[in-house]
Amino acid sequence: MLVADETEAETIEHLNEAINARDGSALLSIAGEMHYADLAHHYENLDDEERDFFLKTIGPELATDVIGELPWTLIEEALQHFKPAQLRIILGNLSDDDRVDIFQIVSPENQRRYFSLLGPHDEQLTRNLLKYEEDTAGGRMTTAIGRITADMTVKQAITVLRRDQDSAETLARIFVVDEEGRLVGKVRLRDLAFHPWPTMIHDIMENADERVLATVDQEEAARMLSKYDLIVLPVVDEFDHLLGVITYDDAMEILQEESTEDIEKLAAIGGEQSELSYLNTSVQSHFRRRVIWLVALAFVSIFSGYVMFRFSAVLNQAYVLSLFLPMVVAAGGNSGGQAATMVIRAMSLGEVNTGTALRIAWKEMQTGILLGLSLGLVMGAFILFLLPLFQVPQAIPYPKLAMAVCASLLIQVFSATLMGSMLPLLARSIWLDPAVVSAPSLASTVDITGMLIYFSSARLILSL
Amino acid sequence: MLVADETEAETIEHLNEAINARDGSALLSIAGEMHYADLAHHYENLDDEERDFFLKTIGPELATDVIGELPWTLIEEALQHFKPAQLRIILGNLSDDDRVDIFQIVSPENQRRYFSLLGPHDEQLTRNLLKYEEDTAGGRMTTAIGRITADMTVKQAITVLRRDQDSAETLARIFVVDEEGRLVGKVRLRDLAFHPWPTMIHDIMENADERVLATVDQEEAARMLSKYDLIVLPVVDEFDHLLGVITYDDAMEILQEESTEDIEKLAAIGGEQSELSYLNTSVQSHFRRRVIWLVALAFVSIFSGYVMFRFSAVLNQAYVLSLFLPMVVAAGGNSGGQAATMVIRAMSLGEVNTGTALRIAWKEMQTGILLGLSLGLVMGAFILFLLPLFQVPQAIPYPKLAMAVCASLLIQVFSATLMGSMLPLLARSIWLDPAVVSAPSLASTVDITGMLIYFSSARLILSL
Repeated sequence: MLVADETEAETIEHLNEAINARDGSALLSIAGEMHYADLAHHYENLDDEERDFFLKTIGPELATDVIGELPWTLIEEALQHFKPAQLRIILGNLSDDDRVDIFQIVSPENQRRYFSLLGPHDEQLTRNLLKYEEDTAGGRMTTAIGRITADMTVKQAITVLRRDQDSAETLARIFVVDEEGRLVGKVRLRDLAFHPWPTMIHDIMENADERVLATVDQEEAARMLSKYDLIVLPVVDEFDHLLGVITYDDAMEILQEESTEDIEKLAAIGGEQSELSYLNTSVQSHFRRRVIWLVALAFVSIFSGYVMFRFSAVLNQAYVLSLFLPMVVAAGGNSGGQAATMVIRAMSLGEVNTGTALRIAWKEMQTGILLGLSLGLVMGAFILFLLPLFQVPQAIPYPKLAMAVCASLLIQVFSATLMGSMLPLLARSIWLDPAVVSAPSLASTVDITGMLIYFSSARLILSL
Repeated sequence: MLVADETEAETIEHLNEAINARDGSALLSIAGEMHYADLAHHYENLDDEERDFFLKTIGPELATDVIGELPWTLIEEALQHFKPAQLRIILGNLSDDDRVDIFQIVSPENQRRYFSLLGPHDEQLTRNLLKYEEDTAGGRMTTAIGRITADMTVKQAITVLRRDQDSAETLARIFVVDEEGRLVGKVRLRDLAFHPWPTMIHDIMENADERVLATVDQEEAARMLSKYDLIVLPVVDEFDHLLGVITYDDAMEILQEESTEDIEKLAAIGGEQSELSYLNTSVQSHFRRRVIWLVALAFVSIFSGYVMFRFSAVLNQAYVLSLFLPMVVAAGGNSGGQAATMVIRAMSLGEVNTGTALRIAWKEMQTGILLGLSLGLVMGAFILFLLPLFQVPQAIPYPKLAMAVCASLLIQVFSATLMGSMLPLLARSIWLDPAVVSAPSLASTVDITGMLIYFSSARLILSL
């Protein structure tokens, strides 16, 4: 029962006891009752020796399911625990898309060794699928689907599908191809189950309009599945030959991965998203993914420091100016980051693109003015009506200070909002990932403009 | 054909022409060839009069599908375009979960009116479903599923299901209940299609271990669907009575919504996530969702300003110190934001929780030290070896400056990393949303510590 957390915690405890005691039969009986996705999750927490005992005890059949759920960084190592005879079983049992994923990541040496363990049919299939890039629809699809032709009867179709039922990953949708293998339609399994056997397939099949080319990005395929609420999306070549399908569970995984990637890039975390869970990612890898951005951004902020250094005379003239310097600087980073985040997420969801740049710019210009005005007026009022109560020693009349702060906030927030919204589109238009315009990199950039705007308006207004 | 973008753009153009010319028959023929999800997407871009023409032309049947795909902010308004007789058709045609969603958002007055248009069965069903909170599994489930009992034969099961096939949202999994309606197992449609008719259901059914209580959060249900690669997840009450199912497409939608919410909160964008696409969200609404955070954060940064104001004497002693002030401040915001983002995403994916706080703290302390040391050493080296080349006028010996900058970067990055990782856990432990610890709010906070750390270490080292 997966509802009760207590029971789940107990099961995990028993599993741990069995592994610690190296009690094979206890392990087998507990593992048999658990879902392989939970076993894979637990496997991450074991040490090397425990993993060896675990994998050898559960045997190649269950190991196949567990390995299919592991993060890819752990798979090659996991396979090393098995003898060739067992490996042959595991590689044969894997679904074709999982198998290709594994072949894509292992060392060339291991790839050769694994090929030698595959039967001729699986080897040919794997070599064909390896032609597609890992992050395309073709690289993600499974070829294990039910195929029938329009001139079959329901009875003939059922006979064909019954033969393939163990290898077919899904029969929720069955695709109809012509004699050349081109996709011409689809039927639902329920249509076969509920129609009389002599019914012709072409009388009950529907159009299969939704389809993707094998070469499109996996994210585009996943978005299509999500938009049209599809269980499976057929993948075709440029001549409409049916190559395979992307399933709903792949789509869910792809969309989650892409969201995580966006979130991490927005926070200036670099490199490949780790498939390992947070706690199983090593300190070294956490460090590596953050340090480069951190150092790069630090160098950018030397320029802000330089602006401050050059304008120290202005600060000297009226120390009270330093009270609002961090605010003007931060307001740019915050408003720019908000705008960039909105636009980047909208791009990820396929809502906007570089073609709509002008409409976005117009919307953000209006939003930026409203935001800058509100913030400027609030702070102007604060300086005029509340600041005098604090009796801060100062050399500038309150109205002049209020004007300088209000004007710089308006300019800073307006320009940062516009920059934040346009930079991701600019990045995309020169084929860069929009999310490299991370909020911190944007903040570091507008820090410089913020200092310039603030000191210039202060100097101008002081001289009035 | 949805592959070719050209064709899609052309279709949209023809659709627009038909709407502009108020050409009903042209609109009908184009709309008939488009997917309703695309029609719903296009509907957002129409003005009021065009929407009226569009909805009235396509008629209640197609309108039902389109309305099911609209963002909820547009639905109530869309329903106003129909006469009672048409509304009756639309409300009756909607799937039960979509219908409940609509009843949840409309005005009480419209809710009463819509109830009066429902048949007695639909009314009872809707009232039952309305008992569950909108964001729970019960509030999201559909009750339109195939149910059979274990003592049926395959033939009897097929007869029952054939009767229900039009109303059942999915037959990919068929659930087996006992005479009390308690969930006891599941069969796949293919098992019915491929087994001989006299086979007993209890001989071919499998366990249905995965299930959720109707009261659990929808996000938890969606994560379970994703983890176990399920097409449908049964929803039960505390006595295991089968109430309905959550389907894979609901799960995909829920996970996408939650990701968007996380991303927006991390960037300090407040309020309910808008279901409208970016371009269809009004400037007022964009403004409202950003302004409160922006003003609140601005007030926080007055404290940074105050620290700077108090330490102006130190800055005055050596202007060159201002060169590195923005860097130390920004390094805290950046490293803290990175840590907070990693932990918040890991919490969203269910990987970590408050129980693992100590392990997270230990990992982030190590990562923070490594990051602070690297950044400190890089900048120390920069000051010692490169800064002299720029001939910046300055009153502090280079080694002292390097020491001050290096020490404050180490302390600032270490403490910000630790704070960034712990604050989301702290928020969760006092039942706040972890994502309210947005990167900008964290940055504003560590700005203050950064100033304090920098000025204190500078003063200390200058006095040596």
